[in-house]
Amino acid sequence: MNRTHPTILIIGGVAAGTAAAAKAKRLMPSAKIILFEQGEYISYGTCSLPYYISGVVPDYRSLIHFTADTFEKQKGCIVKIRHCVEEIRPHRKCIVVRDLLANSVTEYKYDRLLITTGADARFLNPDWKHLKNVFTLKSLPDAIAIRRYIEEEHPRRALIIGGGFIGMEMAEAFHRQHLQVTVVEKESLPMPGFEEPVRQRILEELKRHAIAFIGGTLVSDLSQNQGKALAAITPVCSIQTDMILLALGFKPNSELARIAHIRCGSSGGILVDRYLKTSADHVFAAGACAEYKNFQTNRYFFHPLGNLANKTGRIAGINLTGGHEELPSVLKTLAVKIFDLEVAAVGMSAREAESLGYHVRVESLVAPSRAQSFPGSQPLLISLIIEERTQRLLGANLTGTDGAALRANILATAITAGMTLKQIASLDLIYTPPVAPVRDPLLLAASQASKES
Amino acid sequence: MNRTHPTILIIGGVAAGTAAAAKAKRLMPSAKIILFEQGEYISYGTCSLPYYISGVVPDYRSLIHFTADTFEKQKGCIVKIRHCVEEIRPHRKCIVVRDLLANSVTEYKYDRLLITTGADARFLNPDWKHLKNVFTLKSLPDAIAIRRYIEEEHPRRALIIGGGFIGMEMAEAFHRQHLQVTVVEKESLPMPGFEEPVRQRILEELKRHAIAFIGGTLVSDLSQNQGKALAAITPVCSIQTDMILLALGFKPNSELARIAHIRCGSSGGILVDRYLKTSADHVFAAGACAEYKNFQTNRYFFHPLGNLANKTGRIAGINLTGGHEELPSVLKTLAVKIFDLEVAAVGMSAREAESLGYHVRVESLVAPSRAQSFPGSQPLLISLIIEERTQRLLGANLTGTDGAALRANILATAITAGMTLKQIASLDLIYTPPVAPVRDPLLLAASQASKES
Repeated sequence: MNRTHPTILIIGGVAAGTAAAAKAKRLMPSAKIILFEQGEYISYGTCSLPYYISGVVPDYRSLIHFTADTFEKQKGCIVKIRHCVEEIRPHRKCIVVRDLLANSVTEYKYDRLLITTGADARFLNPDWKHLKNVFTLKSLPDAIAIRRYIEEEHPRRALIIGGGFIGMEMAEAFHRQHLQVTVVEKESLPMPGFEEPVRQRILEELKRHAIAFIGGTLVSDLSQNQGKALAAITPVCSIQTDMILLALGFKPNSELARIAHIRCGSSGGILVDRYLKTSADHVFAAGACAEYKNFQTNRYFFHPLGNLANKTGRIAGINLTGGHEELPSVLKTLAVKIFDLEVAAVGMSAREAESLGYHVRVESLVAPSRAQSFPGSQPLLISLIIEERTQRLLGANLTGTDGAALRANILATAITAGMTLKQIASLDLIYTPPVAPVRDPLLLAASQASKES
Repeated sequence: MNRTHPTILIIGGVAAGTAAAAKAKRLMPSAKIILFEQGEYISYGTCSLPYYISGVVPDYRSLIHFTADTFEKQKGCIVKIRHCVEEIRPHRKCIVVRDLLANSVTEYKYDRLLITTGADARFLNPDWKHLKNVFTLKSLPDAIAIRRYIEEEHPRRALIIGGGFIGMEMAEAFHRQHLQVTVVEKESLPMPGFEEPVRQRILEELKRHAIAFIGGTLVSDLSQNQGKALAAITPVCSIQTDMILLALGFKPNSELARIAHIRCGSSGGILVDRYLKTSADHVFAAGACAEYKNFQTNRYFFHPLGNLANKTGRIAGINLTGGHEELPSVLKTLAVKIFDLEVAAVGMSAREAESLGYHVRVESLVAPSRAQSFPGSQPLLISLIIEERTQRLLGANLTGTDGAALRANILATAITAGMTLKQIASLDLIYTPPVAPVRDPLLLAASQASKES
């Protein structure tokens, strides 16, 4: 290996891949870095896609941080779009790449390789992929296709299968596009993984905006005609619709790695150590194609979100150039805006904690977001997941229309620091009537919960 | 002392006094608790007073959490308003109280006494107290007097002497009441104690709203006529005005304690131990009349804010009934909204840290508050005060129009947990485009600052 002029190859060019490439080039300008992306676009804000579909972000180009061209010019890496990596050969330190336009295959040697192939949207049934009005949402082309379908075909009704965070964001997006929206979810309430009172509050928010929510229901089939879905069939009803979004979550896109005998975990993601090295020498992985150790549970988990992709991408960038940067403790955090409602979760859910053998209790509280006399003060609902033995906070859900999501970060910090309820209750947080009351809702929640013990 | 039916007397009935009384009664219903307040009002939101003056809060009654009557009925304590405590006699365990209406004096015995006499606004010159159009702002009657003066006398111009947080809030309040506002401050920029880039940003915000700011200037005298101030005299100019607010900060109201030979600190506040006991047996103090140990500096400090008053009041309430609750680590936090701008400080300023012998550096960064493509994303300015030796965060200033103040709480939590810059930079914070970008501005600031070292 050429230590001063290594060749670094990166498979996949959205969040983690471009973060890694830019970081590596900055640290080692002499490195030759080639980034392969099978699609047309690199480096865009995946989490903003629902807002392009809704029209809040008018032009999808504003979601693109870099094109292949601007990335090459500004970051000094070589970008090969429309290039599909077909095989990784770790023992020969090379990859096999198909140029999709020229339809030619070339072998590229590497000194170090990074896999950032991301995640794919789950399909209930692979046959549905061919239906013109059935969509998933993972990539920019997905979003462009959905918005184009709305603009060109003028559907009146949209059905969303799956009531998780993509389902919720898309319910709002379709609603903003004047579609009549139905969400079908197999659990009885939206947002599985959140605590019951928060899920109830989310259901209210959906109802307030005339979104039909059908809980406790599985879609078993779609009735079809001329390449289009006409209705979703469930055990209890058939739901007529003009278009369908499958929002069933994601699975890591680790096929290439698996075929190359690189170790994968129980969720199917590539297993990496704390330096993001895979089981193959000189091969790293980052982003949503991999599984990371959760510092709370000490188990590998799959968490396909943009902030983790960005974080692991940057660390991979350091280590690709010979650095020795550890992935710091990874805590689960998730936030989503559903109409006016901010919803956030940090750390473990009660269900997850119990499945890991923790003895937990959940304490919920509603408190005003600002000084009560102040205009704009709104109720904030907080659910705390507490380990009984240690009185430490394991996780939290927050929801409300004023300052819920940013407040979740305070608890993310407290969980990372291993704080007990009592320590959280005695934090000195800011007080100013237009923003927060004399005792922040978080302090009230922690204080009340510590008394219940 | 009667252990099951003690008599607990409390001097002062605004934030700390009522918090303590309610807490003590809840913990020990058999206690006889009497609260003495020399004014007419108890239990109101002092920090909301500028918003009553501005009209944002239309009716001052909505700022009153409890009247003497409702507090007695709902909390089971005896409330004596318009009762002025004239003397504390610790050796005889009694206080001397004047009933201001009846003009009679009575001695009350106590088993335990709590002093919560709060703070007073500073006057430059005691003679000015008699001027009809010169005001300070500390109490509800002050706020009522200011708003009445505006409504009845229709002043066109207001002069604020002092550019601290009260001066800033009142600049906005007077502006909302259509007054032409001038602020005079002895330092060159508003908000002494904040870092320079933040103070520059505040100055811009004042200018944007046509507030005249005269920095680096001391008011030496007022020109007067017929019991009114006509102008403020400074070495460089004379500023004509129709009304004046003195916003020169506060001093602890510890006169009663000092006369009773209870120990006070360098700022004049009553010194308390970590259980809020004063130097006199059975006598506690809480709220803005006392000084508390700052956990960062390990020194006593005076910090007359509502959240600390509330916190110390509750702890005093526990200990008045025989409890043994420690005041947890106290961290300085301050937030204020100045027109559209939120400004917050947590922990030490650079100046303060240097005066304590720390070798510090300040790193400032501007980053977008939300995903950049998202409407409503605004620049957030963050200044971090870092200890060079340990790379720990000692303090931070944040300012911006979107989510600056709530984000300060994340750093307050990190400082309390003793986190280094690197630990802060690797926190997992929430990401959702309508609320926060993929790398929160705090993470960017901590990451950049950790590289500078």
